[in-house]
Amino acid sequence: MVDPWRAIGVVHTSRRDLERTPVQAGANRAEEGTLEIHEPYVEGLAGLAGFDYAWLLTWLDRPDTPGPPSLTQVPYLLRRTGRRLGIFATRGPRRPNPIGLSLVRILDVTGATIRFAGVDLLDGTPVVDLKPYVARFDRPPGEPACGWFDEVAVPDGVTPADLAGPAAGRPGSV
Amino acid sequence: MVDPWRAIGVVHTSRRDLERTPVQAGANRAEEGTLEIHEPYVEGLAGLAGFDYAWLLTWLDRPDTPGPPSLTQVPYLLRRTGRRLGIFATRGPRRPNPIGLSLVRILDVTGATIRFAGVDLLDGTPVVDLKPYVARFDRPPGEPACGWFDEVAVPDGVTPADLAGPAAGRPGSV
Repeated sequence: MVDPWRAIGVVHTSRRDLERTPVQAGANRAEEGTLEIHEPYVEGLAGLAGFDYAWLLTWLDRPDTPGPPSLTQVPYLLRRTGRRLGIFATRGPRRPNPIGLSLVRILDVTGATIRFAGVDLLDGTPVVDLKPYVARFDRPPGEPACGWFDEVAVPDGVTPADLAGPAAGRPGSV
Repeated sequence: MVDPWRAIGVVHTSRRDLERTPVQAGANRAEEGTLEIHEPYVEGLAGLAGFDYAWLLTWLDRPDTPGPPSLTQVPYLLRRTGRRLGIFATRGPRRPNPIGLSLVRILDVTGATIRFAGVDLLDGTPVVDLKPYVARFDRPPGEPACGWFDEVAVPDGVTPADLAGPAAGRPGSV
């Protein structure tokens, strides 16, 4: 299990500080960023412009704390309560494989450059995959239960720094 | 860019042959499978049972053809037409980083075992991440355009073998 991943591109955003980066693209839908696909992969974009949304899969290469991630963490959104959850019940960035999953709206595709809306990534984050959003596959029926997220408000554009509380400054996750 | 990924678990399904494996979990929602989380990571499941759906991120370790994937491919669903698309406009398994993204319904979580519904994976596929489905983040508003998928029917449980056509047997993708 040691296959390396390879970067197919890089994300450019205005964000430089994890504490001041919105916790999710889907909760910060207005802000724009760009994705530059590396030259060897540009041909793979053919047909993408016909989709309104895409999944951006990234390698979250700048954790807020060094070392292996804890398997239970206080999500950013629960900092004020200090409540811990298993990492696989959170969307936080510190994971055994730090893969980010961001739902972005495709604004345009020009050559190797994709302009998108929905920013939750630091500038310079490497991209490992890009998949079109397909409602038939990606939208569950009805109103599914979303665990602890059903009990918290997620204001548009909220960042970890906005959620300071008893746990502020400690490693957290969405 | 040579960070290795690590398997956090393994999927068990009844499927042994890619040609006879449904093309997407979200288009095969009734079939059940299990996910065994490897022992060091089990603590990370705390809180997951409160969610109806999760994203299963896998490493698609058994490509249908050897060697580096082509950047344009005939999706399984377009085999009858032979139409090629860029790999990043498809959901196919042969990608620069062969990461699968499956939306599964969580049936129960017991110790290290998750029983789920929604099967599009071969038995034994390694899991690299597991994230809860959060409607606030993962559901775009309205009825987004889904490119070429808007022009094809995706019958429940359809497999590549069901889609034989001029391109049958050739490397394909969803």
